[in-house]
This record gives sequence, C-alpha cells and structure tokens, in this order.
Amino acid sequence: MNNNYYAIVMAGGVGSRFWPVSTAEFPKQFHDMLGCGVTLLQKTFSRLEQLIPPENILILTNERYNDLVLEQLPKVHPNQILLEPAMRNTAPCILYATLKIQKLNPNAMMVVAPSDHWIENETAFIEDLQTAFDFCEKNDALMTLGIQPTFPNTGFGYIEFNKEDKNQIKKVQQFREKPDYETAKKFLESGNFLWNGGIFIWSVQSVLQAFERFQPQLLALFSEGIPTYNTQAESEFITQNYALAENISIDYAVMEHAENVFVLPARFDWNDLGTWGSLYDKLPKDVNENAIINSKVIIENASNNIIRSNAKKLIIVDGLNDFIIVDHNDVLLIYPKSKEQEIKSLIEKVK
Amino acid sequence: MNNNYYAIVMAGGVGSRFWPVSTAEFPKQFHDMLGCGVTLLQKTFSRLEQLIPPENILILTNERYNDLVLEQLPKVHPNQILLEPAMRNTAPCILYATLKIQKLNPNAMMVVAPSDHWIENETAFIEDLQTAFDFCEKNDALMTLGIQPTFPNTGFGYIEFNKEDKNQIKKVQQFREKPDYETAKKFLESGNFLWNGGIFIWSVQSVLQAFERFQPQLLALFSEGIPTYNTQAESEFITQNYALAENISIDYAVMEHAENVFVLPARFDWNDLGTWGSLYDKLPKDVNENAIINSKVIIENASNNIIRSNAKKLIIVDGLNDFIIVDHNDVLLIYPKSKEQEIKSLIEKVK
Repeated sequence: MNNNYYAIVMAGGVGSRFWPVSTAEFPKQFHDMLGCGVTLLQKTFSRLEQLIPPENILILTNERYNDLVLEQLPKVHPNQILLEPAMRNTAPCILYATLKIQKLNPNAMMVVAPSDHWIENETAFIEDLQTAFDFCEKNDALMTLGIQPTFPNTGFGYIEFNKEDKNQIKKVQQFREKPDYETAKKFLESGNFLWNGGIFIWSVQSVLQAFERFQPQLLALFSEGIPTYNTQAESEFITQNYALAENISIDYAVMEHAENVFVLPARFDWNDLGTWGSLYDKLPKDVNENAIINSKVIIENASNNIIRSNAKKLIIVDGLNDFIIVDHNDVLLIYPKSKEQEIKSLIEKVK
Repeated sequence: MNNNYYAIVMAGGVGSRFWPVSTAEFPKQFHDMLGCGVTLLQKTFSRLEQLIPPENILILTNERYNDLVLEQLPKVHPNQILLEPAMRNTAPCILYATLKIQKLNPNAMMVVAPSDHWIENETAFIEDLQTAFDFCEKNDALMTLGIQPTFPNTGFGYIEFNKEDKNQIKKVQQFREKPDYETAKKFLESGNFLWNGGIFIWSVQSVLQAFERFQPQLLALFSEGIPTYNTQAESEFITQNYALAENISIDYAVMEHAENVFVLPARFDWNDLGTWGSLYDKLPKDVNENAIINSKVIIENASNNIIRSNAKKLIIVDGLNDFIIVDHNDVLLIYPKSKEQEIKSLIEKVK
C-alpha cells in the first residue's frame, strides 16, 4: 500500500431529507441506511481502505459527531478526526486537512470523498481512484471523478468536458451549477456532461498551489496554524480561527477557477442517497416493487413503497402505493414518495 | 345503596378485531381504547358502582387475566374475581356466578354486563338499570336492556317485542340471531326490533328457575359445587368440573326458551366497540374527520382516518384517507377501514 495516499472523508452533513431516521443528533452517514449491517461511514471507510492505509484516512466532521465516529470506526485514532467548530462549507475544512497532511507528508496524494454516498462496484471505484492518483502524481492536476448521468437530475451540479477530447481523462471545460430541467435534458443529450459527485483527487502540492492562487486569504488564515498542526496546540488554534474562514465550497473557491482541472468518467455506479426515493432505487424489491429495510412485513394490495423500521417491528400494510413508511424511535412517517423533497420542511413543523 | 344488588361483569373476551392493540395476552377490555385515561373495564366498573355496592360486583374472566383485573380494579377483592378455567360461552359462567351469589344472598338481584362496551350517558343507564331492577323485584321476569338500532347492523342479534305493547317494559316475542342485510332493514322498518347488547337483569331466584327448567343438566353440574362456593374448596371444584359444562350462550340456553322475558328499550346511547370502525364513530374528530387516540400528529391531505399509538409517538400522515393506523409495541398496522373485519384473520398470518 502506498503510504503517500491519503483520504479526507467528509462526514459533517445532516441529511435532513432522511428525517426521521437522519437527524442533527444522528445524521444519515452514521446510519445503516440500506439495512446491510454497516453504516454509510463504515462502508465509505472500508472502501477507501482498499487502496489507502487506514491511518491515512482523515474524517472531517462536526464536534458533536466525534464520539459517533470513534464508535463506528475503531481503527481510527482520535487525531485522525478533524472537528469543525463551525459550519463553513467544504473549502475551509479541505484546506485545513490538506495543511495537516502536508506537514506529515509533503509528497501526499489525496482523495476527498463524501461519507454518505453509495457505490456498488467497489473494484471499479478503486481502479478509477488508482488511475486518478497515477495521473495526479505525474501532472499538476486537480481531478474529479465524474458520474455518468442516467437522467436529467436537477439536484446535482454538472461537469462539462470537451467533446472532442478522446482521452480517458478529460480536461474540464467548466463546472455547471444545478440546472433547470430543460437545461439538464440538454446536458444529457450533448453527452459531454457528468454529475459532480464531490469526489476530488490531487496532490497536496497541486491543491495548495491552487489555494495560493485563488484563495490567498483563506490559505493565509490556515497557514498561520501550521506550527500547531498535529500538536497539542492545534485544537486551540482551530477553535480560535476556524469560524473566521469564509463560508465557501471547494467547487466555488478553487475548481471553477483553476485551468488544470480534469475529470475521469467513473466506471462505477453511484447513488448520492440524497432522498428516500434515491435510496428506494438502490434497494432490492419484492414482487410488487416494495423495498423493505429491516422490518418484518405483511403486505397486501400495496406496491412501490419504501418501508423502514427496526428489525423487531412487524409492519402490516394494505392498500398503499408509492409511500414512504418509516418508523423510527418516537416518530412514524407515512408520506407520499412524490413529496420526498418536503420531508426536510417537516423538521421545522415538528419544532 | 341496595345491598341486594349484584353485578356480573363479563371480562373474558379477546377482542381480536382490535389487534394489534387487543391481543390474547392483553385484550380490549383492559385497554384505554378511547384514550380517555381509563380502561373499558374500569369504565364499566365505575358505571355499575353508581348503583351497585362495589363489593357486590363480580368479574368473570379467564385465569390468565386475574392479575390484570386486580391491577386495574384496586377495590376488587380476589374473591370477587371468578376465573374460568376453560372457554365455555356465557351460560356456564353466569350460572356459576349466580349460584355463588345465591349462597351469599338468596334475595339478590343481578345485572349481567359486558366489560367492553361504551355508554356515554351513564345517568340514563343507571336509571334504566333501576327501572329493570324494580320490575324484576316485583315480577318473575328475565329482563334485558334493548338498544335502539340506528342502522341495519348485521353483526348483532335482535330482540323482537310485540308492536302493540305500549308499556315501557315490553314482553319479548323472540330473540333473533344476526340477520342478513335485507332482514336487518326490515327489522328497522317495522320498529319493534332492538339490538341485543348482552345486558341482562333478573333476580337470582328467577334465573335459577329458568335454568332448572331449560338447563337441568348444567344446573346439576354447578349445584354440586354449592358447598364449596365462597370457600377454599371452590377453586378445586371449578378446576375439576368447569370444563365439563356445555359450551352454550345464555341467549340460547335460557332466553330463547323462557316465556317471562321482557325488554326495556334503553334510553342511553351505546356502542359495542366491536371494531376500529365503531370505535372511530365514538371518537372526537379533527376538521378532516380524523380520530386521534393518544398520538401527537401532523396530518395533511388526510381524512377519515383513525390513528392510535402511545402518547409519546409523533405520527406524520400525508395523502391517506379512510385508514386505520395503529402503532402498538412491535406492530404497526396501516389498513383500510373498509377491511376492518379482516384484521382478525391477520393474527393467524402473524403466527
């Protein structure tokens, strides 16, 4: 295993569209969303571990989730967990992690990976990741794995590459924000657009050069902490300075400006598990297309439902189609799949 | 309070149409079905207590429910609970209770009352009960309180009285078994039919005479135990002999044969709480005709549902009409109200 390989796992999200299972106290990435016996974070860690030494995998998360990470990833040492004292989007925390890694190993290669996505074919993922690492080792490149779009999703950002580029790894023309439906349809038709899955690969050196060029202020803020990183003083520095960072995404801070951005069209399937509906798509179904997570069920005259509870629960459903049925602790949700985007707003009503 | 007044509360049923709340381990009468803070048995007891000395109220139930009765009715002494070692319908247990009461008080007047029905107007009930007691004190009569039918229910037995009879208390012409829908409609049109709500009033003397005439074998069986009743030896006698009794209802054993049967048309409203639907009828509703028991709810685009859980549970329902939604321990039932009669059969499927 290559000791220069590092990963940053982004595990600070809240996953509010998966309420009531996912909550601010216990978000989606810490749940076994698919009922397969491991949580999304555990699945992400074990996937990365196939190529990256486990001690080189850093977890970026909110202070309140520190114990959850330690509990779910027994291989992870407390100093592999980077705690964000405030929500500042992806650029500040990626920069912070990068500077820590640079101090440990200036030749490091890094992958930034979300903690809450689903990838079925892990072998293809690892092969694509290796291809990207190899490219970034030889070139001053900021890379991303682009997801082959399967429908005109308006919830994702897109990556446009040059149509004429016949290389496996293609130069990115531009990042495109979430499009409307008509635009998304055109993206799919033109064939040179990929979904931005938030997976980035680069050398520490390349990404720090990009920060230097496009975000000198942010780099200055976090560089001041370098003497403290990986020491007892780090925590105090971060507590005092982290909130001063601009709230900005890595896409907007760096990727959209840089000219050395490349994309490898991913060969693995991918699902962002962003809503109950996308989770439904990933799950095995019964003859009537009902997807069951954990529950024991008696289902009659019911189809296309997603049903989730703890494993002890018996759920009897009759006469219901296209519903989300989730029983979790003291909440029972019976909600049309077509309104999955509105689940987020229920949280406010509950308060 | 008249010390000659006694009651037998029938509390041995299972209420399987109220599954999953009502189970063989914890039947309907021991639940607070309406979410009013007391169980149906407690409500029945406190209703009878307004006219009958509490120590004269006997509870007939199955051995397995002894602890439940003692727990729910702290005023009841263990020797007020008559435990049926086997299911033998109503005639054997009523006879057994009657003989015990006779031994305590040969001048006793009795009411037999189900433990799991709902009566809103308790004052009217007590007045009707008093009228019946008064009649039975003066006459050798077997009385019943007949419920004014409100629709052609095919699930109840009916009591036919003479149309010409202008007395408040009417002579019964015959008991009629559960009719088909057309017959039930005719019953309602003719105006001299009442529902049989299983409430009977008589003197110990009158009912024992009826048993002597129509069920001499049954009377002989239980009379043999008289020396043991209300003594330490009672339990052993009952254990050894109860199962020998014929499985027969009081209607079929006595009421349908006797000529001295009278009915008082009840002035109180009544609900047998036989199904989730009849419970729904009794409950207060929100603007969209949803009936909620205990649950906290967020309801949108949903009407005519009955929703029940424990009081801690938050239930969010959207897009559902005419459903029974019951969350109870490890079972969640989401079932169309129109299929309430089939809930009973679910219990088999669950096994």
